[in-house]
Amino acid sequence: MFRATSRLHTVCQAARSTLALRPVKYAPAYKAVSLTMFNTSRLYATSGSTKVVPLTAEKYPGFNRNEQFKKLEDSDVDHFKAIVGETGLIYNNEDDLAAFNTDWMNKYRGQSQLVLKPKTTQQVADILKYCTEQSIAVVPQGGNTGLVGGSIPVFDEVVLSLQSMNSIRSFDDVSGILTADAGCILEGLDNWLNEKGYMMPLDLGAKGSCHIGGNLATNAGGLRLLRYGSLHGTVLGLEVVLPDGSILDSMSTLRKDNTGYDLKQLFIGSEGTIGVITGVSILTPRRPKAVNVALLGLNTYEDVQKAFKQSRSELSEILSAFEFWDNNALQIYKKHSDAKPLMENEYPFYVLIETSGSNKDHDDEKLTNYLENMMVDEVAQDGVVAQDETQIKNIWGVREGFTEALGKEAAVYKYDVSMPVNKINDCLEDMRQHLKDGGVFGQPDSPIIDVVGYGHVGDGNLHLNIAANRVDKRVPALIEPYLFEWVAKQNGSISAEHGLGVAKNQFLSYSKSDGMIKMMKTMKNLLDPKGVLNPYKYLPSQ
Amino acid sequence: MFRATSRLHTVCQAARSTLALRPVKYAPAYKAVSLTMFNTSRLYATSGSTKVVPLTAEKYPGFNRNEQFKKLEDSDVDHFKAIVGETGLIYNNEDDLAAFNTDWMNKYRGQSQLVLKPKTTQQVADILKYCTEQSIAVVPQGGNTGLVGGSIPVFDEVVLSLQSMNSIRSFDDVSGILTADAGCILEGLDNWLNEKGYMMPLDLGAKGSCHIGGNLATNAGGLRLLRYGSLHGTVLGLEVVLPDGSILDSMSTLRKDNTGYDLKQLFIGSEGTIGVITGVSILTPRRPKAVNVALLGLNTYEDVQKAFKQSRSELSEILSAFEFWDNNALQIYKKHSDAKPLMENEYPFYVLIETSGSNKDHDDEKLTNYLENMMVDEVAQDGVVAQDETQIKNIWGVREGFTEALGKEAAVYKYDVSMPVNKINDCLEDMRQHLKDGGVFGQPDSPIIDVVGYGHVGDGNLHLNIAANRVDKRVPALIEPYLFEWVAKQNGSISAEHGLGVAKNQFLSYSKSDGMIKMMKTMKNLLDPKGVLNPYKYLPSQ
Repeated sequence: MFRATSRLHTVCQAARSTLALRPVKYAPAYKAVSLTMFNTSRLYATSGSTKVVPLTAEKYPGFNRNEQFKKLEDSDVDHFKAIVGETGLIYNNEDDLAAFNTDWMNKYRGQSQLVLKPKTTQQVADILKYCTEQSIAVVPQGGNTGLVGGSIPVFDEVVLSLQSMNSIRSFDDVSGILTADAGCILEGLDNWLNEKGYMMPLDLGAKGSCHIGGNLATNAGGLRLLRYGSLHGTVLGLEVVLPDGSILDSMSTLRKDNTGYDLKQLFIGSEGTIGVITGVSILTPRRPKAVNVALLGLNTYEDVQKAFKQSRSELSEILSAFEFWDNNALQIYKKHSDAKPLMENEYPFYVLIETSGSNKDHDDEKLTNYLENMMVDEVAQDGVVAQDETQIKNIWGVREGFTEALGKEAAVYKYDVSMPVNKINDCLEDMRQHLKDGGVFGQPDSPIIDVVGYGHVGDGNLHLNIAANRVDKRVPALIEPYLFEWVAKQNGSISAEHGLGVAKNQFLSYSKSDGMIKMMKTMKNLLDPKGVLNPYKYLPSQ
Repeated sequence: MFRATSRLHTVCQAARSTLALRPVKYAPAYKAVSLTMFNTSRLYATSGSTKVVPLTAEKYPGFNRNEQFKKLEDSDVDHFKAIVGETGLIYNNEDDLAAFNTDWMNKYRGQSQLVLKPKTTQQVADILKYCTEQSIAVVPQGGNTGLVGGSIPVFDEVVLSLQSMNSIRSFDDVSGILTADAGCILEGLDNWLNEKGYMMPLDLGAKGSCHIGGNLATNAGGLRLLRYGSLHGTVLGLEVVLPDGSILDSMSTLRKDNTGYDLKQLFIGSEGTIGVITGVSILTPRRPKAVNVALLGLNTYEDVQKAFKQSRSELSEILSAFEFWDNNALQIYKKHSDAKPLMENEYPFYVLIETSGSNKDHDDEKLTNYLENMMVDEVAQDGVVAQDETQIKNIWGVREGFTEALGKEAAVYKYDVSMPVNKINDCLEDMRQHLKDGGVFGQPDSPIIDVVGYGHVGDGNLHLNIAANRVDKRVPALIEPYLFEWVAKQNGSISAEHGLGVAKNQFLSYSKSDGMIKMMKTMKNLLDPKGVLNPYKYLPSQ
């Protein structure tokens, strides 16, 4: 049963004039659940564990070590030791190397024997200069919270961890411009800014572990993109070390600067393949004084779109999140969670609406009017509004609990795609039918449990997940490239926010034209002619 | 006298509890004055005129025609005619060529004999392919409203005008994503979106003439940047023709797409030097339902900063403009305008505050509270709030009237710089002192009338203007490179939003490191190895 809790206010039961809202002060507490998930050191299957992560190079076909890369010699390690010092590296110590060689999902595993932890930009420069000179392959790594294996070595690449570069450099509390080292943890920056009345313009589940440098290198999207826009807009400057060891300094703290090509943009989303980000200058918004969260139950995907369109009109400048999930996703969540249901009945679709503003009373009134209109116009069938921080956490807890719940099934095929907003449910329904037609879904003995959808509907970003009760070779063959072709037909993206890494690089042509891929390869060759930086990833090998 | 008009409400005269606001519906009418200024065809000094604009190549030193560029032959013109048709070009007709050879300020003049007006992306591609093959230099041109001579030929470059590519391609009214040809006029797009409840995320004085393609090529900032962010964030996709004639298609209509280097960013702000933008996909915000405009008079620049910081906190999500000017700028304006004064007394500084929101009552309340706080805390000495569209127009009219007023002086030296917000007035005061020390300002017979400042203080963007009653050779020598050095010391930008063109390219090193300039040149050489696209501009010649 999925029932309204006693502390949650059910919109449909309220007289329109008496709808009572009690928004809470902004607090990031509701992210606590997911934070622990991203602590890589806790998740790695150690030798004492029953689970050993297979090597990426063996698990995925088509990887061959590039023999033009030098194998590490003692003299190389000595050279690196001279740069970063005795305590600035980990060498030939499997236990300590483990957390750097494996991702938090236990999906990818590399074979690096050396981790370097430089403390200064100059040390990063000295390392890269030597790596290029000696043809030593190197993988930059931030918080290691990625989903596509981008920060994990494939073979014996040296890991260049930014974790020891974690100082805030400056903050201007008139303009809200922050400069910081790349290794600062996102949540740490957000907490630091909180005391000054500001916040980071991005937020994601991994905030407790991910580095701001990694966020930039992967162009992280996340929960606040709808409101604060992409990093291409909020990042004002970068400090980047190029593969040849030169330091590209564009650490501007200016909102406006039209003097030449905006080269820093190339590195945002480049996944460490053409340079290593060591510093960032970013514009931070004022922290909102009031945050409200509501949940609506809806009958059709058309209603989801109506609710979104109307939210842009009525909630407009205070709308900070518009997330959706289908009832299929909720069923998987319920199976693995003992959380109380948020509504009395179930509906085919749900949307989570968050507002963030500077005036609590105004925000309450706008949200109340919006929710009333949604109910009166029968766009929504039911709705609840959080009355306190705990209830905000409960509602967000469902949205953020899908990943964990799905992870408890025997197998899950995860996709992160974007497309025009009106195509999202078609994508889910078509995939269900396709798997039924393929004989792997819909029968009592089918391997597929369900195709479920959730995501940032406001950004056209669907997290499509296919849960299975066992591994069946027919399944991946049915999904790929079928899904990629489907997305390509809608001019969508096969990777909305997760990036390419080793998971998607061979499928790039589904989202980018030959001309674009050719120019990307030209850029890579220009900046990293020996290809030492994060090899085997990002760009297709052919 | 500068006195409160009868229709304007004076904050200091109102009991705090009775401050009456009557915000108006959003209307772009207040831009009408400046629009006419940018109609290039009206401004060019024809042969019948007494004023002939000197040739850029003769007026500014250091220009030599690159003799590697082919001089146009009849066979070339025939080839172009075969691409664009008889009506798609202007050849050897001085009168018709004039508007393309001269900028609206009558500051730059080129010597092109051929203007091409392609109607399709393929025609642009065919033109550029031929130009590169034949080494024919070419200047892309949009609405020709630039301030640094970037779209005007220097010698005999062919002008490639985008004015015949002016169709809206698509609009998604759920997501607000617009795709359009590069030659669409900004105001036309804004008006078209208006009917659908959306708006363009940028606004500038030249909106009645400037093209969206030109806005992107110059990374236009303008009045809405404070609220809606830079084009690097709002542009989702571009269609660009490279110098070799290949079409780079990244016309994504997706808010999220992490598949490869974000190459389109390179072309935003590249001033037509590495490719010609032919199409754009851009995210448009909802048009606000209510707009308020207020004007404050302040005693110190510290108060300006306090007012700005507090506006970010109290007006937060509805703040859409925070403009400033000093009393020096106002005096020049008064000299050339018969508009009634807006306040009873004069103050050293003024700030214009605009709010745009979805709920008129809420916005009124926020603004009233803010203005009251500013008065009670004695941050502001006086203030007025517009009660209707005419008053909104009147207040904006002052801010937008400075350019025209300054243009009526015998000479004006215009600069567009950015720096940390707290340095803006220091820059003005220091420049005044420097010119006094240099003997050209402060005495009855001095050539300098005044150094005046206005601009987008919220963006750290100062328009520094030096008005003179006559041309005096000592003046420019005192200003440059003094000002650029001053700005460089603050890690500022010598061109905040106007770009480089032929006016600033030789001064790039004041804002960009050698490493950055080297990489810019590498990019230029990579994409335009023959250098045919917009030569003599943007990058320093040495």
